[in-house]
Amino acid sequence: MALADRWLLPDGVKDILPPRARQIEALRRRLLDLYDSWGYELVMPPLMEHLESLLTGVGRDLDLDTFKVTDQVSGHLLGIRADITPQVARIDAHRMRSQGASRLCYCGSVLHTRPANMLASRNPLQVGAELYGHAGIDSDVEVIALMLETLLASGIEAPISLDLGHVGIFRNLMADAGLSDAQEAEYLEKLQLKALPEIEVFLNELEADARLLDRLAELPRLHGGVDVLARARVLFADASPAVTEAIDYLEQLADRVGRRYPQVRLYFDLGELRGYNYHTGIVFAAYAAGFGQAIAKGGRYDEIGRDFGRARPATGFSSDLKSLSDLSASVLEVRGGAILAPAGQDPLLIERIGELRAQGERVIQQLPDVTLANLSSCDRQLLRQEMTGSSRPCKRIFD
Amino acid sequence: MALADRWLLPDGVKDILPPRARQIEALRRRLLDLYDSWGYELVMPPLMEHLESLLTGVGRDLDLDTFKVTDQVSGHLLGIRADITPQVARIDAHRMRSQGASRLCYCGSVLHTRPANMLASRNPLQVGAELYGHAGIDSDVEVIALMLETLLASGIEAPISLDLGHVGIFRNLMADAGLSDAQEAEYLEKLQLKALPEIEVFLNELEADARLLDRLAELPRLHGGVDVLARARVLFADASPAVTEAIDYLEQLADRVGRRYPQVRLYFDLGELRGYNYHTGIVFAAYAAGFGQAIAKGGRYDEIGRDFGRARPATGFSSDLKSLSDLSASVLEVRGGAILAPAGQDPLLIERIGELRAQGERVIQQLPDVTLANLSSCDRQLLRQEMTGSSRPCKRIFD
Repeated sequence: MALADRWLLPDGVKDILPPRARQIEALRRRLLDLYDSWGYELVMPPLMEHLESLLTGVGRDLDLDTFKVTDQVSGHLLGIRADITPQVARIDAHRMRSQGASRLCYCGSVLHTRPANMLASRNPLQVGAELYGHAGIDSDVEVIALMLETLLASGIEAPISLDLGHVGIFRNLMADAGLSDAQEAEYLEKLQLKALPEIEVFLNELEADARLLDRLAELPRLHGGVDVLARARVLFADASPAVTEAIDYLEQLADRVGRRYPQVRLYFDLGELRGYNYHTGIVFAAYAAGFGQAIAKGGRYDEIGRDFGRARPATGFSSDLKSLSDLSASVLEVRGGAILAPAGQDPLLIERIGELRAQGERVIQQLPDVTLANLSSCDRQLLRQEMTGSSRPCKRIFD
Repeated sequence: MALADRWLLPDGVKDILPPRARQIEALRRRLLDLYDSWGYELVMPPLMEHLESLLTGVGRDLDLDTFKVTDQVSGHLLGIRADITPQVARIDAHRMRSQGASRLCYCGSVLHTRPANMLASRNPLQVGAELYGHAGIDSDVEVIALMLETLLASGIEAPISLDLGHVGIFRNLMADAGLSDAQEAEYLEKLQLKALPEIEVFLNELEADARLLDRLAELPRLHGGVDVLARARVLFADASPAVTEAIDYLEQLADRVGRRYPQVRLYFDLGELRGYNYHTGIVFAAYAAGFGQAIAKGGRYDEIGRDFGRARPATGFSSDLKSLSDLSASVLEVRGGAILAPAGQDPLLIERIGELRAQGERVIQQLPDVTLANLSSCDRQLLRQEMTGSSRPCKRIFD
């Protein structure tokens, strides 16, 4: 690397400079306080773990996203976390061992080997909340509500839409269809890409019941407003009862969320299978108008704790604090202005500066023989009353 | 790795669980607000960078401490940061390009391949502040004062001592002595280990002026109270004037810091050369009684920006927020208690819960058919007045 290039950062990695860093810090505090006010307790898992702990049960995508290093101390393979969710599941399953429902939240840096999309950061600041130990609709409603409160608290004013899906529909249709594992994987891949022509070709080559094939052909088209659920009921009327149960669940969930957040547009996508290999129930994602990617997402994943010795019902969401801050229409209130104090070590001066800081003021002390880079942020000045030897505060000079 | 071991963490890596995580979060806020009140602006450098950016000018120790990964996007070698200081220097030199003195602060996770000592974390939460663009004693006093304020704000009540050194003494003695690079490196290594017998053997084999050899033999013994400076003045009277200037500088610095923080015990160590390859002036470290390692440390490093295109005077310190929290004698005030609310989606109930949360209360909603893990934290309960349909808040039930 040439000397002139040493300041270049890798693709998808950025510095956060003032004043934006302070905005992100303010939002971080606001969100962690929000989660605290809902009874979610803060945990801080480490930045790296044994690779197997990080990847247990979460599937191949996260494996590809995770940077691996060798532990010089043990020789084991370590991963730099690409997702905090499995770490919190490990903490719930093994470290906390709570009886009953428990609520945990977190905020921390993660690293991705590949950006999730062209514009995505490879170093998101992941923030999220998880609810363990309860399997009913109340906990799903609660985490969706908390996710929406996260967007509102972030000052996102663009219209928000909520995408809802349920992996139980696909899972039970597959059980009905009796496809081989390879066939199921192939269909899943095409379904996730919503590759309709390819799905048609694939289904034409399958030897199966015509009604079954109809269902699989329609699944990728089942997205849109609440009428999607009515269409699905008709189409899947003869399918396993579990499919209809999943549709009922989605309808109830949408009803509850819709009453509570009438301003949020609800959207259903029954072919949405993000994180299919670890999600077990509903999956959801929030979108803000004008931002192409999901701004927050989550779902139910009741099995994730199993590999850590305790399968517990689990539901939760996560987001990227930097993206939330980017989308925010509001400037969070942070301390503005500053008092410029003269240089020197006079005990009276030092004492007065300390008092002002303790009162919540920002006091910037002048340094001999240099100008200050942030002089323009000073809107008041601490001046000395020469005759008495005491310091008089806060005469305005830049008004 | 056996299934039963998936919850094991690598050596030197730990989860932070409730309630400790909330204490660390509270301390994080207190320290960042402290730095803000001194006019230090927050920056957030990324968790990984090109390896050459991270290691430029900082020497071999940091190289060995840094995890390396290959960037799949570019094929370049990346490092996971082991120290935030060089990142902030890069930001000052290249990104901010401020004219005049600038003050920056940061708080973030770093990773170390090797623990700094048997008990050290390999995943510290580094917090620190840097002052760029001023070369005089005022900026050194300021960062030392801010470091001591950091310890006081952290609630460390154990007696604090401050170790002071100045790499200019060693550097100029070496220039006088005319040793080869290999000889200098050998002496430096033995000096850092304070290996007195080995130093004696080494010096006996050197062919040099006897007075010069005396100085090099005494240097590792020049540690203790302020009398060390008087002994050094006599011993180095004939040495390069720059040596005496460095002693003068240390004396002035100690005088100013001592007046401002009379409760801090000052200790001098003229053979202390931590970070010798990038420090250019004073070096300092704070110790708390009962904790064997430095709890915070720093120094002047005027050359570090050069490789990023702009050498600026620089002085700063850093610490580990987790260690500060461990040493804290005080429990930081965090919101205590909670209100238990009944399960359900009744709009009146949801509204009342929202009001209480907005008023700063922690409200934990009951979930059907499970107990809550943190039920014992609820000291009040939200109860419904059945007859009117309205909700009445906050009847105490667990008093």
